[in-house]
Amino acid sequence: MTYRAPVKDFMFGLKELAGLDQLTQIPAFEEAGLETAAAVLEECARLNENVVAPLNWDGDQKPSFWKAGQVITTPGFKDAFKQFVDGGWQGLQHPPEFGGQGLPKAIGAACIEMLNSANLSFALCPLLTDGAIEALLTAGSDEQKATYIPPMIEGRWTGTMNLTEPQAGSDLAAVRTRAEPQADGTYKIFGTKIFITYGEHDMAENIVHLVLARVVGAPEGVKGISLFIVPKFMVNADGSLGERNDVHCVSIEHKLGIKASPTAVLQYGDHGGAVGTLIGQENRGLEYMFIMMNAARFAVGIQGIAVADRAYQKAVQYARDRVQSRPVDGSLPTAGAIIHHPDVRRMLMTMRSLSEGCRALALVAGAAYDAAHHHPDADTRRVNQAFYEFMVPLVKGYSTEMSLEVTSLGVQVHGGMGFIEETGAAQYYRDAKILTIYEGTTAIQANDLIGRKTARDGGQTAKAIAGQIEVTEAALAAHSSVAAQTYARRLKAARLAFIEVVDFVAGRTKAHPNEVFAGSVNYLMLAGNLMAGWQMGRALLAAEDAINEGDDVPFMTAKIATARFYGDHILTRVPGLRDSVIDGGESVCALALEAF
Amino acid sequence: MTYRAPVKDFMFGLKELAGLDQLTQIPAFEEAGLETAAAVLEECARLNENVVAPLNWDGDQKPSFWKAGQVITTPGFKDAFKQFVDGGWQGLQHPPEFGGQGLPKAIGAACIEMLNSANLSFALCPLLTDGAIEALLTAGSDEQKATYIPPMIEGRWTGTMNLTEPQAGSDLAAVRTRAEPQADGTYKIFGTKIFITYGEHDMAENIVHLVLARVVGAPEGVKGISLFIVPKFMVNADGSLGERNDVHCVSIEHKLGIKASPTAVLQYGDHGGAVGTLIGQENRGLEYMFIMMNAARFAVGIQGIAVADRAYQKAVQYARDRVQSRPVDGSLPTAGAIIHHPDVRRMLMTMRSLSEGCRALALVAGAAYDAAHHHPDADTRRVNQAFYEFMVPLVKGYSTEMSLEVTSLGVQVHGGMGFIEETGAAQYYRDAKILTIYEGTTAIQANDLIGRKTARDGGQTAKAIAGQIEVTEAALAAHSSVAAQTYARRLKAARLAFIEVVDFVAGRTKAHPNEVFAGSVNYLMLAGNLMAGWQMGRALLAAEDAINEGDDVPFMTAKIATARFYGDHILTRVPGLRDSVIDGGESVCALALEAF
Repeated sequence: MTYRAPVKDFMFGLKELAGLDQLTQIPAFEEAGLETAAAVLEECARLNENVVAPLNWDGDQKPSFWKAGQVITTPGFKDAFKQFVDGGWQGLQHPPEFGGQGLPKAIGAACIEMLNSANLSFALCPLLTDGAIEALLTAGSDEQKATYIPPMIEGRWTGTMNLTEPQAGSDLAAVRTRAEPQADGTYKIFGTKIFITYGEHDMAENIVHLVLARVVGAPEGVKGISLFIVPKFMVNADGSLGERNDVHCVSIEHKLGIKASPTAVLQYGDHGGAVGTLIGQENRGLEYMFIMMNAARFAVGIQGIAVADRAYQKAVQYARDRVQSRPVDGSLPTAGAIIHHPDVRRMLMTMRSLSEGCRALALVAGAAYDAAHHHPDADTRRVNQAFYEFMVPLVKGYSTEMSLEVTSLGVQVHGGMGFIEETGAAQYYRDAKILTIYEGTTAIQANDLIGRKTARDGGQTAKAIAGQIEVTEAALAAHSSVAAQTYARRLKAARLAFIEVVDFVAGRTKAHPNEVFAGSVNYLMLAGNLMAGWQMGRALLAAEDAINEGDDVPFMTAKIATARFYGDHILTRVPGLRDSVIDGGESVCALALEAF
Repeated sequence: MTYRAPVKDFMFGLKELAGLDQLTQIPAFEEAGLETAAAVLEECARLNENVVAPLNWDGDQKPSFWKAGQVITTPGFKDAFKQFVDGGWQGLQHPPEFGGQGLPKAIGAACIEMLNSANLSFALCPLLTDGAIEALLTAGSDEQKATYIPPMIEGRWTGTMNLTEPQAGSDLAAVRTRAEPQADGTYKIFGTKIFITYGEHDMAENIVHLVLARVVGAPEGVKGISLFIVPKFMVNADGSLGERNDVHCVSIEHKLGIKASPTAVLQYGDHGGAVGTLIGQENRGLEYMFIMMNAARFAVGIQGIAVADRAYQKAVQYARDRVQSRPVDGSLPTAGAIIHHPDVRRMLMTMRSLSEGCRALALVAGAAYDAAHHHPDADTRRVNQAFYEFMVPLVKGYSTEMSLEVTSLGVQVHGGMGFIEETGAAQYYRDAKILTIYEGTTAIQANDLIGRKTARDGGQTAKAIAGQIEVTEAALAAHSSVAAQTYARRLKAARLAFIEVVDFVAGRTKAHPNEVFAGSVNYLMLAGNLMAGWQMGRALLAAEDAINEGDDVPFMTAKIATARFYGDHILTRVPGLRDSVIDGGESVCALALEAF
């Protein structure tokens, strides 16, 4: 077996950190307790371990390919997708009235991680469909919802996001795709979209493209962008498929990684115009697309955790098997498995603690989303929404950046064998590289963190979270173990650094934007490091308590060891990042443009 | 042009940091002053920019391939290699009596960087030949030198290092290849060697394999390993080629990067035994191989700098061309080139300052090698040898680790386009990944730094170097500029952290090996960061002095800006690394083996 789903760690996180028991007090989630979670996760693990994971390497070796406008996916994908949707996994988090199961995002996050660990390329198709469903749920008309959501949940149709154009990447103000209103209320769409994930494929009957375009005469910039549904095949009134729409895949990209996931160039309107229907109101497209994007960003953050865990598991396996040299402490009489060497342990622990820390953060953020959307109390909803929104750029930015470090270490543990493609470690290294780029680069996440999430409310949300961290510090300090005491100190140092940086950002963004934005990514890395470290501190507490009650001692002991490592080796990066942000803004932009 | 050699920066480093003028006081280098250096570098730049660099992308797209025991290299490589050797570049650093030019390693380092920036895969062939020449110069008999070195310098023949076997990677004690003594004084060699760079190719008439093997009856472990010359074609007494030897390439690897460089599996003795001649004495093979390896490690460190600079140049080009979004400070009325965005600047400056810092360190280390080998005064030789040996694991380990960060940022600057292979940025990311692995992984370098370079002399060499850094701090503090004052503080903080770690290593390695070796790579990163930062501090001083004299103000101003960035953003990583090493040793090995 090439992948073992960390079901125990998910359950620990859901119970001890994300507070799943509390979520069940929300009417919508009465049934979604620990027992349900355990059953869902076990079933999900089975599918992903046995069906989806074995296709990961195949996808790299036999990528999707384009032929005369069609895209043929990797052999086995079509069947696996059928098993995925037949199992009801596409509808996991979506409302029962459209055929979904209405489970909390916290549980969904665990399932999404498993799917992505199993196969990043495969998982992208459901990921984008999830986004399309969320956008329609929020902004679609009743008719649009009824027409498009059920088939997407059933997996007969899939969804895409069409934002990027050759001149419009991070800068959506530059979108040029044109929408011409028709007498029947529809629009004709003309333009070229690039980097469209699963923009064309053979796993479903229809593809529902959500497309950003500019209605003729609309204002310049982001305020003139509208969102349209443009299905690959037109949909008849009875839901059956009609004529082929005028949107065509003219090529797919040759990429560094996630090769099985077709990245399409889509041409709209070359034969008279693609027929689209408006979602919501004209010129509010970006607002709706952000719904989709926020869901997608959270999911991409989970992709980072997922690929990191898979890389970790592979590296552990190799480190156990590969015999090379006698340990430095002479603990073995002859050469031993390289997992005995301290530096191999350091690499594996770095991989493990980063993955577990980010996983804990994602589960907690997922639970906040659930409370934000479903809690009966408005104030609780508001607080949780602010918390969730603060965490989204961190889950996306930090988890994906850490996945680069982890997958790189994964290759390194394998030594020379890691550089040989057949070993498979290099695939994770290549696949992961897209994660810091798509759905908003790390810099875009960092801009969001600075602008909308920190400067806008003068650092209030950030400080409130820092207050919660202080509570964890106090609880750690009240535990008598050296591990807890040490962790409390490390967490405090990191929190104080965070507060300094938040003050810096809140106080200077307006007057000195360059200086602050020069430190944006370092701020994001600092905050992500702290927030994941906070959760590891909470995990340490829960694990010590569990051990006192004799509850799964081996697992809890391992959790404590992993948290300690996080404290000593990852949280310690924070003060350097603070110096870099607070003192280093000027030197970032000091070099004259012509001197580069 | 896809690559512009940084000749000005080389000349600055050679003059201001490596002290080339002082080297000319050594009899062997009387002619090797700044004027010679300038002429050599210009010529070298021309060849690499125009001939070698354009083949880099071709090599990735049309890698070397194996066919019936032969390896056919990328179209154009053979001709480029001819131009390279006809220009005398293979002999640059080698003795005139064998046809070389006898130039200092400091100048050679610059030339090797250019060759590797131009084309990492291509450069590996001369790199290995250099190593073979150095090994023969030190340990070969007069006859072996006369037979093998001139044709290698002429480029008619090339050299390889044959260490690795399937069960013997980092652990050379496990070498099993067998050597049977023959009546005529030769040996018959039997065994399988893997990962042999340019172990087979079509660019030269003959290939000189230096092979580690165990003479029948030799002691177990590293003390029973001998080194042999096994040419692909036997060499007649007059130097002409004789029969084909019994060494055959049975396959080449399918790799993540450096695809044009054939990585061979070589089979020795399947048809009666490959004929080899012993180098030096039996059972001293590892000692001789280390000569070759030290030269190769230094060169691989330069490969890191080289690929980092190439990635930097490509990223700058893209950042100047790609228009996207209006700058946050409103300095442009509309969307501008992304180089105007602070985070893009941060990425480019990180790439630039790491590359320049490591380059400065390599040039200084190269000059120390020259003094160590050629200075008339024995004491000066000894001091420089200790300095050089301390720097080798840092040049190798730190420069290659930083190249992973730099090439990753290089992709990131390109956004989505960076993930598309045709863009070319991903090639550097893939190519660089081997550098932290071959010629001794980063962990192996770190073990060397701890064992032979720090613990063995109780930290004496390390402390002596720290003393030199203190002198630089004082000089910085004596300059009145804010840049110099700030840099002095940062350098001091990093030096003090270094001393703490050196004391920790010197004091605890024997009694607590696991705890110390758990921090080995972090110690290496700390030391490399400091040593490169020290050179950037010296560069800052020299640049301020030059500006006072009105000397090339734009270049010197840029150097100061780059040094400042290094101080604020790279040196600031040091204290976190210190904490990790000193306080974190225990938590690295705390997780039970069965819990991974």
